[in-house]
Amino acid sequence: MNPVEIIKKKRNGEVLTEEDIFYFVSHYVKGEIPDYQKSALLMTIYFRGLNDSETLSFVKAFINSGKRVDLSHIMKPKIDKHSTGGVGDKTSIILAPLIACFDIVVPMMSGRGLGHTGGTLDKLESIPGFNVHLSIAEFVKNLEKLNVSMIGQTDDLTPADKMIYALRDVTATVENVGLITASITSKKIAEGSEGIVFDVKVGNGSTLPTYEKSKELASKLLKTSRDFGQDAIAVLTDMRSPLGYSIGNWTEIKECIEIMNPALTTSPLSADLIEVTLFLAGAMLKLAGKCNTIDEGIKQAGEKLSCGECFKKFLALVEMQGGDSSVILSPDNYPAAKYVDKITSESGGYLEKLDALTFGLAAVNLGCGRKSVVDKIDYSASILLEKKIGDETSKGDVICRILGETAEKVESTKKLLISGIKVSKSKPQKLSRIIEVID
Amino acid sequence: MNPVEIIKKKRNGEVLTEEDIFYFVSHYVKGEIPDYQKSALLMTIYFRGLNDSETLSFVKAFINSGKRVDLSHIMKPKIDKHSTGGVGDKTSIILAPLIACFDIVVPMMSGRGLGHTGGTLDKLESIPGFNVHLSIAEFVKNLEKLNVSMIGQTDDLTPADKMIYALRDVTATVENVGLITASITSKKIAEGSEGIVFDVKVGNGSTLPTYEKSKELASKLLKTSRDFGQDAIAVLTDMRSPLGYSIGNWTEIKECIEIMNPALTTSPLSADLIEVTLFLAGAMLKLAGKCNTIDEGIKQAGEKLSCGECFKKFLALVEMQGGDSSVILSPDNYPAAKYVDKITSESGGYLEKLDALTFGLAAVNLGCGRKSVVDKIDYSASILLEKKIGDETSKGDVICRILGETAEKVESTKKLLISGIKVSKSKPQKLSRIIEVID
Repeated sequence: MNPVEIIKKKRNGEVLTEEDIFYFVSHYVKGEIPDYQKSALLMTIYFRGLNDSETLSFVKAFINSGKRVDLSHIMKPKIDKHSTGGVGDKTSIILAPLIACFDIVVPMMSGRGLGHTGGTLDKLESIPGFNVHLSIAEFVKNLEKLNVSMIGQTDDLTPADKMIYALRDVTATVENVGLITASITSKKIAEGSEGIVFDVKVGNGSTLPTYEKSKELASKLLKTSRDFGQDAIAVLTDMRSPLGYSIGNWTEIKECIEIMNPALTTSPLSADLIEVTLFLAGAMLKLAGKCNTIDEGIKQAGEKLSCGECFKKFLALVEMQGGDSSVILSPDNYPAAKYVDKITSESGGYLEKLDALTFGLAAVNLGCGRKSVVDKIDYSASILLEKKIGDETSKGDVICRILGETAEKVESTKKLLISGIKVSKSKPQKLSRIIEVID
Repeated sequence: MNPVEIIKKKRNGEVLTEEDIFYFVSHYVKGEIPDYQKSALLMTIYFRGLNDSETLSFVKAFINSGKRVDLSHIMKPKIDKHSTGGVGDKTSIILAPLIACFDIVVPMMSGRGLGHTGGTLDKLESIPGFNVHLSIAEFVKNLEKLNVSMIGQTDDLTPADKMIYALRDVTATVENVGLITASITSKKIAEGSEGIVFDVKVGNGSTLPTYEKSKELASKLLKTSRDFGQDAIAVLTDMRSPLGYSIGNWTEIKECIEIMNPALTTSPLSADLIEVTLFLAGAMLKLAGKCNTIDEGIKQAGEKLSCGECFKKFLALVEMQGGDSSVILSPDNYPAAKYVDKITSESGGYLEKLDALTFGLAAVNLGCGRKSVVDKIDYSASILLEKKIGDETSKGDVICRILGETAEKVESTKKLLISGIKVSKSKPQKLSRIIEVID
C-alpha cells in the first residue's frame, strides 16, 4: 500500500476500501504518513465526498485509534445529545442534569467554541473551579454516582479524530458531511452512549450552508450511528437567530439557572431555548424507553424542570466537578463586565432579523470566543438581547446590550452587530424552532 | 492575508488574485506556510483548475523566487525545446548540438526520469565524466563558447517550483494542466531562452491521459509563454509506442550517436526518432528566424545532421562538460549488461502494439529509472526493439531484447513487457509521429 496511490484513487472518484482507510488513518496517527499527504486526501474527500461504507470505515478507524469508555456495568440507559453548533445554544447545560433525573446515564463529552459557534466546555469553565478535564476513570465514577458528568474529550479517546480535526481546521476541509459525520459519531460511540439525539442546526448560524446540507448531515448521522448499533433521532432546529436571550459564557449559564431554579424568574425571551431543550429532552427520553412519543417525553421533562429537581441535579453536578455552587445559587454575585453599551431601535415596527452568524462573530470579537487557540476567554463578556424576532419595538427601545472588558471591544462589537439587526413595519410570523424530526 | 482563507476561496471556485498567489508561494518558500496547507491548495487546484491569469501569477511567483539567467549580452537567438516526457524520447541529445550549429544559443536545462518517462539528465550521466551540475556562470560561459550547454536545473533558479514540484509528486497533484504549465514555462523563462518549442506528447506513454488534455496543455503553454514575450510553437507528437529502437540510458545515447556520426550505420528502426527530431529542429529554426517554414527548417537541419557537423558539436559539448569522448567515438567499448533475454513473436503477422506505458514502467523495473529518489540507475540496462509497429513478423522473430544487471530483473521485466506487445493478422497503417502543430 502506498499513500499516493490511495490519494489518487479517491481523487479519481473511486471508492476507498476499509483497508485503504485503516491504512491511511493508522499510519497517520503513528506519524508514518505526513500531514501534507493527509491534507491532500482530506481535500479529495471534500470534493468527492464519502459514501456510507467509507464513512463507516473512518468511524471504525477513529474508534480503533484509542480507548472506549466501558459503561456496560451500569444497568441504565446511556443517552447523549450532540448539537452541530450554534449561537446562544446552551441546551446541554439544562439537558444533562434534566435527563439524569430520570435515572438515565448522560455521558456528555463536549467541545469548545469553534468559529462563530459557542462551546459547552467554555461555558462550564466560566463557573469558578469547574473542572472539565477528568480521566475516564473519574468520568465513569461520576456517572455511577450522579448519572451525569460533563467533560471534554480525553486524549485517549479517538485520538485519530482529534489529530485529523486539527488538520481539517487549518486546511479548509471542515465542511464535508462525511468527515463531520465520522468525527461526531466516532466520539459518541467511544464515550459509551447507547442512544444519541442529534440537534442539527439549520440556517446561517449553523456550520453548514444550506437546509439540504443540514438534512444530508442528519440522515448520515442517523445511518452511521445505527450501523454501529446506537439508536438515534435527529432534530433539525432553526439557527437563523440566537437561541434564548444571552450569548456569552457566564450569562448563558445564568440564563439556564433562571430556567432551572424555581426560585428565580425565567425571562420570556428564553421561550425558544426552553422549547428546543424540552423537545431534545423528549427525544432523549423516547430513546431511553421512558415514553412512547416525543410529546409524552416533553411533558415529563417539563415537570422535572419546573419542580426544581433538575436544578438540584445541576448543583450536585457542579459540586462534584469542583465548581463553586455559591455562584450558582446567587448568580448576581458573579463579577460584572466593566463596560456596557446598548443598541436601540432607530424606528418603530417589529424586529425582523437578528442574524445568528453576525451575533456569533461579534461575540468572538467581544472575547466570548477565541480567534486563535492561545486567546483567553472573557467569561463575563456577553451580548444580551432585550427583544426577539417578531417583537414589537418603538423607536429608542433597547434591542440588545453589549457587556465587555474594554470600551474598544464593546464599541467594535456594536459596529459589527448593527448590520445583523433589522426592524420592519410588517409583523413577521413567529415560527417554531423545531423544523423537522428525522428518525 | 490568511492561508486558510486562500485555500477556501479556491476551494469554493473563486479566482485567486496575483496577491493571493504571491503571498502563498513566497511564504511557502520561506517555510512560513506549512506543506499541509500547500498540498491542500494544490488539491483544490487539481479540482478547480487555474485560469490564464492565475497560471501567469504562478509563473511570476516561481520566477521571482530565484535568479534568472541573463543572456542578453549574447547577440544570438536563444531557443530551447521542452518535451512533456515520453518513452525512448531522446530528441534533446541530437537537437541541442544540431541547433547550436546554426549559431543559435541552446540553453538547455533538463530533468531526470519521472514515473515511466525517461530523463535527459540521466541519459547524459551515462557518459563517463559528463557533469550536468554546472553553476549559472559556467553555464553562461559554455553558451558563449559553444552555443550549447546541457545541465540540470540549478538550485537558484525557480526554487519555488522545485519545492512545489516535489510536494506535488507525493500528493497526487501532478496531473493538472495549469500547474504543469506554470512549472514548465517558469523554468524556460528563467533559463534565458527567447523562443521555445514544446513537444507535447499524446497517448498513454505521455503524462496526460487524453488527446484533449494534451491539446489543452499545448494551448496553455503557448499562451503563457507568449504572455511573457517568449515566442513559441507547440507540436503534438504520438507517444503510444516508444520512440526509436532503444529505451534505457546509454543505449539511447548510442542510438543518437549512430544517427549523428556519419561513419556509423543508422538503424532503420530510428526513422520515427529522426522524423520527430528534425521536425522539432525545423520549428526551432523557424523561431530563430533562420527559415520561413518548418519544412524549410527540416531540410536545413537534415543537412547539418547528415554532414557530421552536428556530431562534431556533440563531441565538443561532451568534452566541455567533462565527458569521456572516447566512448562517444567507439560506443561499442561501453560496458555491456550482464544478462540478456529476448521476446519472440508467438505467431506470424504484423506488430500492432508496443505499449509505451508498459515499456516505460518495465524499463524502470529493469533499472533504467528510479522507483524512489535513492535508487541508483543502471546505465547499461535497456530494452532494444528489433521490430516497430506495422513491421511484418514471423513466428519466432525477435521483437525486443532485454539487457540487465541480474537474471531476476531481466526475467521480471520480460513478464511485464509481454502484456504490452500484440501481433495481429492485418497490417496496421504506419502513421506519422507528428499529429498537429499549434502556433
